[in-house]
Amino acid sequence: MGNSFGHLFRVTTFGESHGGGVGVIIDGCPPQLEISAEEIQFELDRRRPGQSKITTPRRESDTCEILSGVFEGKTLGTPIMVLVRNKDARSQDYNEMAVKYRPSHADATYDAKYGIRNWQGGGRSSARETIGRVAAGAIAKKILKQVTGVDIVAYVKQVHDLEAQVDPDRVTLEDVEANIVRSPDPDFVERTIAAIEAARKQGDSLGGVVECVARSVPKGLGEPVFDKLEADLAKAIMSLPATKGFEIGSGFAGTRLTGHEHNDEFYADAEGNIRTHTNRSGGIQGGISNGEAIILRAAFKPTATIRKEQRTVTRDGQNTVLAAKGRHDPCVLPRAVPMVEAMVALVLCDHLLRHQAQCGTLTAADVSSSLNSPLAASPIA
Amino acid sequence: MGNSFGHLFRVTTFGESHGGGVGVIIDGCPPQLEISAEEIQFELDRRRPGQSKITTPRRESDTCEILSGVFEGKTLGTPIMVLVRNKDARSQDYNEMAVKYRPSHADATYDAKYGIRNWQGGGRSSARETIGRVAAGAIAKKILKQVTGVDIVAYVKQVHDLEAQVDPDRVTLEDVEANIVRSPDPDFVERTIAAIEAARKQGDSLGGVVECVARSVPKGLGEPVFDKLEADLAKAIMSLPATKGFEIGSGFAGTRLTGHEHNDEFYADAEGNIRTHTNRSGGIQGGISNGEAIILRAAFKPTATIRKEQRTVTRDGQNTVLAAKGRHDPCVLPRAVPMVEAMVALVLCDHLLRHQAQCGTLTAADVSSSLNSPLAASPIA
Amino acid sequence: MGNSFGHLFRVTTFGESHGGGVGVIIDGCPPQLEISAEEIQFELDRRRPGQSKITTPRRESDTCEILSGVFEGKTLGTPIMVLVRNKDARSQDYNEMAVKYRPSHADATYDAKYGIRNWQGGGRSSARETIGRVAAGAIAKKILKQVTGVDIVAYVKQVHDLEAQVDPDRVTLEDVEANIVRSPDPDFVERTIAAIEAARKQGDSLGGVVECVARSVPKGLGEPVFDKLEADLAKAIMSLPATKGFEIGSGFAGTRLTGHEHNDEFYADAEGNIRTHTNRSGGIQGGISNGEAIILRAAFKPTATIRKEQRTVTRDGQNTVLAAKGRHDPCVLPRAVPMVEAMVALVLCDHLLRHQAQCGTLTAADVSSSLNSPLAASPIA
Amino acid sequence: MGNSFGHLFRVTTFGESHGGGVGVIIDGCPPQLEISAEEIQFELDRRRPGQSKITTPRRESDTCEILSGVFEGKTLGTPIMVLVRNKDARSQDYNEMAVKYRPSHADATYDAKYGIRNWQGGGRSSARETIGRVAAGAIAKKILKQVTGVDIVAYVKQVHDLEAQVDPDRVTLEDVEANIVRSPDPDFVERTIAAIEAARKQGDSLGGVVECVARSVPKGLGEPVFDKLEADLAKAIMSLPATKGFEIGSGFAGTRLTGHEHNDEFYADAEGNIRTHTNRSGGIQGGISNGEAIILRAAFKPTATIRKEQRTVTRDGQNTVLAAKGRHDPCVLPRAVPMVEAMVALVLCDHLLRHQAQCGTLTAADVSSSLNSPLAASPIA
Repeated sequence: MGNSFGHLFRVTTFGESHGGGVGVIIDGCPPQLEISAEEIQFELDRRRPGQSKITTPRRESDTCEILSGVFEGKTLGTPIMVLVRNKDARSQDYNEMAVKYRPSHADATYDAKYGIRNWQGGGRSSARETIGRVAAGAIAKKILKQVTGVDIVAYVKQVHDLEAQVDPDRVTLEDVEANIVRSPDPDFVERTIAAIEAARKQGDSLGGVVECVARSVPKGLGEPVFDKLEADLAKAIMSLPATKGFEIGSGFAGTRLTGHEHNDEFYADAEGNIRTHTNRSGGIQGGISNGEAIILRAAFKPTATIRKEQRTVTRDGQNTVLAAKGRHDPCVLPRAVPMVEAMVALVLCDHLLRHQAQCGTLTAADVSSSLNSPLAASPIA
Repeated sequence: MGNSFGHLFRVTTFGESHGGGVGVIIDGCPPQLEISAEEIQFELDRRRPGQSKITTPRRESDTCEILSGVFEGKTLGTPIMVLVRNKDARSQDYNEMAVKYRPSHADATYDAKYGIRNWQGGGRSSARETIGRVAAGAIAKKILKQVTGVDIVAYVKQVHDLEAQVDPDRVTLEDVEANIVRSPDPDFVERTIAAIEAARKQGDSLGGVVECVARSVPKGLGEPVFDKLEADLAKAIMSLPATKGFEIGSGFAGTRLTGHEHNDEFYADAEGNIRTHTNRSGGIQGGISNGEAIILRAAFKPTATIRKEQRTVTRDGQNTVLAAKGRHDPCVLPRAVPMVEAMVALVLCDHLLRHQAQCGTLTAADVSSSLNSPLAASPIA
Repeated sequence: MGNSFGHLFRVTTFGESHGGGVGVIIDGCPPQLEISAEEIQFELDRRRPGQSKITTPRRESDTCEILSGVFEGKTLGTPIMVLVRNKDARSQDYNEMAVKYRPSHADATYDAKYGIRNWQGGGRSSARETIGRVAAGAIAKKILKQVTGVDIVAYVKQVHDLEAQVDPDRVTLEDVEANIVRSPDPDFVERTIAAIEAARKQGDSLGGVVECVARSVPKGLGEPVFDKLEADLAKAIMSLPATKGFEIGSGFAGTRLTGHEHNDEFYADAEGNIRTHTNRSGGIQGGISNGEAIILRAAFKPTATIRKEQRTVTRDGQNTVLAAKGRHDPCVLPRAVPMVEAMVALVLCDHLLRHQAQCGTLTAADVSSSLNSPLAASPIA
Repeated sequence: MGNSFGHLFRVTTFGESHGGGVGVIIDGCPPQLEISAEEIQFELDRRRPGQSKITTPRRESDTCEILSGVFEGKTLGTPIMVLVRNKDARSQDYNEMAVKYRPSHADATYDAKYGIRNWQGGGRSSARETIGRVAAGAIAKKILKQVTGVDIVAYVKQVHDLEAQVDPDRVTLEDVEANIVRSPDPDFVERTIAAIEAARKQGDSLGGVVECVARSVPKGLGEPVFDKLEADLAKAIMSLPATKGFEIGSGFAGTRLTGHEHNDEFYADAEGNIRTHTNRSGGIQGGISNGEAIILRAAFKPTATIRKEQRTVTRDGQNTVLAAKGRHDPCVLPRAVPMVEAMVALVLCDHLLRHQAQCGTLTAADVSSSLNSPLAASPIA
């Protein structure tokens, strides 16, 4: 039952890495939004394999097709179905893995749960599944941009023990897309490429951290109690393959400050907008956006499938060793960037519609006007 | 709409800190479970205010009443309603906060979202809301214990810059409850009490980290894709007040290992159970439990409401200062321990029922037998 | 899991007929709505037992208490909890029914499902559960009235073989409340009272039909495909105790017309509003409201619990007979009227918020303006 | 948001009549179920257009393709995606309807809601959408058959003023498929074919009633309060295009009996099973199945799109007339039979999994054993 996400802007993905295809149904999209396959393809191209020398050499064009929900270039308000057929599938690479479990991969747990699994590639646990998320995220981003001017940018913040210097208030999509690492710090990029290539040569892999900033988010998104904005963001991020941690604002480092050091003091700016001097809250207080930039981080473990030999067991419980064949990413971080953006966009878009349902329509004008007054307009009073 | 949690074992909480009361409806609880108000009260007493010199002196007995769903000591299978009336409410402490926003608190965002808020205490954003979660968690824990012997223990792992030494494989509830900090490391406890008392004297507050371990979890819980077990755990934890970060297994530190260093190699033990040599996965692979201990960490920021003076604004946008009155926790960590356990129990219980729905009934016997075979019994084949 | 209803305006009820109390949590209510316990009590008084000589003589004041979600007379946007304590419970009436199943009642099926049941009264299957629905419905009605002027009126249309003459375009709440049958046809009322009293004397019971009309519903409520407005109305009505059938517009009689006879031809009125000459559609076409009056009917079977002796079995499978004790309604129809109105209000209010989420805010002005133009304003374009 | 159905066995459909295709994602299907495209195609062939002289002559092979979720002939437990490409689309037939609203069709309400619509064919409101339901229903039927031997048969019970004589305890799929009307009464079939052909010649259309029986349903399916089995069945049926009414068991006719006449008296049979002498309840009491046959009826209005000229309006509000072109069913009843069966199967399968989640696994043995004892086994006690 776990293949859907979102309460109002609701996506349902399907597909295995080596089946007939992967894709997504998006239900709840507002009508009359202009959207084209090209706009979706732009985001898919950012996450597709074979895009550079530091990703997997597996070549898939990942060409998308919109099968429903769009008519004469505009959304109908009914389900949008986006399909990507599978192409470059070398199932024979996986013959050994059909019987030997890859350490720290989903092979063993899928078998334990279902008693059956598609052992060609990662099956349903493959990162190929994220195609549906990224396609849906492209539409969510466009809605957020049009309605309230929201701008979402993610980038690689850390790989192994290398860290990038980034100003989250100023980083742009162009900065990020300017290099194959997807990080705006040139020095970091250079050293990271070298580190990833070294890891690949050794048949090993590297992990790291993606940071994401969402700017111009209107005040008021998010709901008490369980559906706090950071709770839904955490779930969104931790549902991505290979994630091991999530932080909002000050994160774990914030636990080493006192309350007086940590609190974001308020002030009224020249126009009377209520702002905060600092942003350790990461743009969210009490589960609800406060109009400052939302900043979060996602920890990605090093890729589990590696060429180096490791101890493992066979499906029938015999001890053995495995040196994985197949074409795998030595570091998922560069391709994880559009995935993180997509998940953040899905959460924000869903909460935008939820807010609109209960508290009335937000428009671009509300982003600044909401800063002017603590009193939101109610649809009732 | 965000006041419910869980898909099958579904809880809905209600109540503000200074209204008529707080509580929870639990829907989907299996029938014929023996449960008493005393068992629920045991957990509520762990989280109630005024329990020790390092918590808020606000005195609430938090006595619970079961209004429905239990008959002659057993669950009926229909909704269980647990109510706790509010008692020790000194609303006058909040007169100033009715017009001045507490920095890093939910005051301003609730006003921005709803245009109205119950300014007495935290209103709906008060940690008092977690009473409903802890009550429901007591029932979830009992189900998990009876059906598959699951054992959930949380403890304070870090306060400010102090860290506890804990062995997650061996720590017990008794170890944790043996002191007012709720940590099994005596040296850490002593220094932490001193640190919290010092912070209180200064009108300041401290944050920290709660770690939680769930042992004897059966293999197979969790669902691809969005409802991965770690994703639902992350949402559960990040929905608790004051959380800023979540980690499963190796967490952010794991990003500094290579794949070969990080992977948990498999082996078959003497009985043929498939186990892992290490547990950097934290008991979950591909979103599904693998039978090893689930280990997670939650970062709690320092309490926002402090006596020290801070800059802020009034409801109508005037710059001012605030030194908060009222009786607040100088450090929420000791009281957060039962909250974290409750949220972990809710997630595991929900996924236990979900697994049972799709893949057949699990019993205590399945915990070990599931270790014996990678092939789960299907209800169909 | 089945004790919640609605996607955005979401109610969760709890309670058994003879436990500590019954009630409801309403999540998703818009903020700043003025609401008082008196307004809720008005509707509860319409459904309470003991209100007239043709209902059960069981006397319960059914006094409600608002425990959360309302502050200084206005909704907060957070969960509203309404509690009604149980009072006049004569459990001893049910001693025999603890071991003998009432024919056509829920006793046997609850035991079959759960292996346990609260045999005092109807337990969870008691119509007492509808208190929570009627309380929530009172709030839904107020929202619908304020936002778009929706007016919902139900009435008894048929009892046994007696039928009322009613003009659904003109019937008012005052007409309905003017007599104890809750029907605007005086001749029907008189004969119905006599029929119900005769049935009671014979230890028997009568069924019938409630008709409900919702006027001034804005165009555009309802969603393809599964959540068609009539589908959600059907579920709402068929979830009420004792219902056996549901009709919208022409209903079963409509199957005996040809398409040419049945279709509602369109015309543009003097103001350019698109209207229909007839209303066999019952105000809904393609699952979406068309601005005409919504008209539906609910069939209620005769009360199952009767004094007349019937064959039955004991809990352990022995053949026996039962002549039910206790104080039961000889005809549920008069008390079913507010229940039907409540369920219709819950569905319309939920769909109003859903429409607002996807397609932008509706206000009172939209009811007429929506009639003026086939082109709804989109929040996007 | 309304394009999904079911809580655990959850289907999401997509597609318009003249877009790229239609289909369904089925999430929550138990693993290891043997299923083939042929089994799904069998049901699709029962509902496809052009199958006989009394249906629309539109020719679509409606060939299905399984894109995910099935591996080596067995379900994986992950989403099953079934796609049917659109073929025989003559959009030019709809040029006139692009600007003129068909009376009693969804054209006008879709425009009112979304401000945009795919005017080629019915768009999303086309009965072509039910392909996804019928495909999912084929899988649900197989699960129900394998796990507990459930047998679902629907048939045409009434067309216009003609009624069939059918014994719901004995009717078989073979009886129903033996003729193009899909009714087991030969005399009725003959007269119905003549009536439909006459209506077609006149450019008119006919409605009617489909009855459906589900036999060998285990006791205990269905949930109080809102998700009563008959409530979910009602929603399922009323979500089908062109439905105007729903009845369970005695339906509206039951309102004309007294309680003593209507109640289903219990008896214990020779094996100690608790049975009822009659079945006016239609197999459901208190919202929960009682082990007797479930019997329901669905009223379908006459097809809205007819060749006879009718008054209508244009999209911009001008009065006009329309004589619809295109190839339409003069009577939808024969093709509605597999749709009704599919919806009943989806509801029962979902509730089977829900019951299993809360109350433990049901197997084929439980159907009879559940009849033996009023005490269900609990997963807990």
